[in-house]
Amino acid sequence: MSQTNGTDGATKPKPQYDPDFTSSVIKATGPKANPRVAQVVGSLIQHLHDFARDVDLTVDEWMMGVNMINRAGQMSNERRNEGQLLCDVIGLESLVDEITNKQLVGADYEATKTAILGPFFRHDTPPTKNDTSIIKTMPKDGEVTYMHGIVRDAATNEPLKGITIDIWQCSTNGLYEQQDPEQAEFNLRGKLTTDENGYYGLYCLRPVPYPVPDDGPGGELLQLLDRHPYRPAHIHIIAGSDKYTPLTTQIFDKTSKYLAEDSVFAVKDDLVVDFVPVQGKENASLELTYDIKLAKIL
Amino acid sequence: MSQTNGTDGATKPKPQYDPDFTSSVIKATGPKANPRVAQVVGSLIQHLHDFARDVDLTVDEWMMGVNMINRAGQMSNERRNEGQLLCDVIGLESLVDEITNKQLVGADYEATKTAILGPFFRHDTPPTKNDTSIIKTMPKDGEVTYMHGIVRDAATNEPLKGITIDIWQCSTNGLYEQQDPEQAEFNLRGKLTTDENGYYGLYCLRPVPYPVPDDGPGGELLQLLDRHPYRPAHIHIIAGSDKYTPLTTQIFDKTSKYLAEDSVFAVKDDLVVDFVPVQGKENASLELTYDIKLAKIL
Repeated sequence: MSQTNGTDGATKPKPQYDPDFTSSVIKATGPKANPRVAQVVGSLIQHLHDFARDVDLTVDEWMMGVNMINRAGQMSNERRNEGQLLCDVIGLESLVDEITNKQLVGADYEATKTAILGPFFRHDTPPTKNDTSIIKTMPKDGEVTYMHGIVRDAATNEPLKGITIDIWQCSTNGLYEQQDPEQAEFNLRGKLTTDENGYYGLYCLRPVPYPVPDDGPGGELLQLLDRHPYRPAHIHIIAGSDKYTPLTTQIFDKTSKYLAEDSVFAVKDDLVVDFVPVQGKENASLELTYDIKLAKIL
Repeated sequence: MSQTNGTDGATKPKPQYDPDFTSSVIKATGPKANPRVAQVVGSLIQHLHDFARDVDLTVDEWMMGVNMINRAGQMSNERRNEGQLLCDVIGLESLVDEITNKQLVGADYEATKTAILGPFFRHDTPPTKNDTSIIKTMPKDGEVTYMHGIVRDAATNEPLKGITIDIWQCSTNGLYEQQDPEQAEFNLRGKLTTDENGYYGLYCLRPVPYPVPDDGPGGELLQLLDRHPYRPAHIHIIAGSDKYTPLTTQIFDKTSKYLAEDSVFAVKDDLVVDFVPVQGKENASLELTYDIKLAKIL
C-alpha cells in the first residue's frame, strides 16, 4: 500500500512512505503478550496504518478523530455508550455480530438470523408470565400486539421447553424506559420462558421508528456523512438456555420506514415480520406470530 | 479479504462473511457529504471491516476495545490526552506526522526531519531572550547544557532571521511542568527568535528517559503487548515563521537508553544528537550544537 503511486499517473505522485515503519511497530510486541492479543492488535495496526497511507491522513484530520473519540468517552455512562454508537454508525457492531455468530454456530447454520444487541438491553428484567402484557405505561397512540410463537431446535425442529426469552422495545415516543422518566421501570421489557410445547406469548406495542441519540459524536458523524439517524421499527429479542447458543436478534415491521436505510445496518431480510389485524382478542388489535430456531451449543 | 479461507488448509475453514456488507455501509454516505470526509471515512470503514474479518473479531473482543476507548475519553482533560496516547502506542501519530510532512514539504525534502508533537506542548509560552536559561526550577541532578545552532533555508542554506523556536523538555524526574506542582510555571520551556545570523542559543537540561503515563488505557495496551512505557531522552522543538513550514520535531540524546525501543516510535537516525563536555562556560557543563533546516512554504 505504501509503495504504490497514485493511479491517475498525473501531476502529483503519491509520496513514498517508510516501508519498514509498520512492521517495526508490530514487531515491538513482546514475547509474553497473549497470542490472540498480539494477533488482533497486530492486524489492527496494519489496517489502521494502511488506511492512513491510503488517504494520506494529515495530523489535523487524525486529531479531529482523536477529539471525537475522547468526547464519545466523556459522554458515555451507564445509560449511554457513545463509543459503541460510533461503531454502530460505521457498521462495525453489525459485522462483529455476524462474525461471532458464524464462529459459534458453525457452517450448518439454520438457526434464526442474529442482529446487534444495541445499548438498551438490561440484564435485570424480572421474569414475566406467558400471555401477560409488558406494557406498564400505555402511550395514547399505542397499538397493542399479541406476539407469540414456538421456539424449536434448528436441526431437529423439536419444540424446546424452558428457553428464556428477553424482549424489549421502545415506546411510541422513540424512548426506552431508562431514557424516559415518564415510563415505569421495566416498561416494555419481558423475560419469558417457553412452556412444554415451546410456546411463548405476550402483549406488547407495535414498534415505531426512532432516531439513535444524535446529540454527540455519533450524531456528528452521521451529519458529516449526510445520513439520517433513524432506525426502522423493531423489537429486540435474546433467546437461549444452557444447552442452546443464546440468540441475539431484532425483528422489523415490514411496513416501517427506513427498512432499507437503518442507521446502524442491522436489518436482514429474514428478520422482517408482519403485524396483522387480530380477530376475537379484546386486549389486542394486532397479532405477530414469530417462531425462533436455536442452534445447540457445539 | 472476506472471501479467502484460512491458509493452513486444516480443520476449520474460515467462515464466509456477507461479501456485500461493507460496500453497503460505504454507499450509505449521502450526496451532500464533503468529498474528503466521504473518502476518509469510507476508507476507514473498509480497513476496519477488513481487520474484523481478518482476525474473526468477536463481539466480546470488540466490546473490550469500545470500553478501552470510552475510558480513554473519560480520562482525558486539558492536561492529558489518553486517546492520543493510545494512537501513539500503535505508532499512528508518528505515521500521520510523516504523511503530513511529506504532503507539506513535497518531494524535494531536504529539511530537518520531523517527529510527533506529543501531548505536552503549550501554546502560551512567553518569549525568551537568546543565551538565557529556561531552567526556572533547578533539579539537584540536573546537567546544564548550552544548546545552540543556526537555522537555515533547506534549499539555499542561507541563515534565517526571525524564526520562532519553541523548545520544551521534562525535568530529571520525568515530569513536564504542568504535570508537577513542584516546578515553576513554564519551567523548561522557551520561545526564542533567531537573530540576523540565524543564531539561537539557550541553557537547558540534559534530557532523561521517562515513561508515558501508564495508569490508563494507554498503559493497559502497553502491558497487553508486553512492552515498556519508556521514551528515550529527548528535547521537543517547533521552528517556523510565516514564510517557512513550521517544523515539529524532537532530538534524542545518543547515549540514552530506549533509543531503539521508543514506546511511541518517534526516533529517527537524523534526530539523534551528541551532548559534549563544554570548555570555558561557567554556567554549563555540556554543549549541544543543533542546526535546523526549514523548507519554504510552497
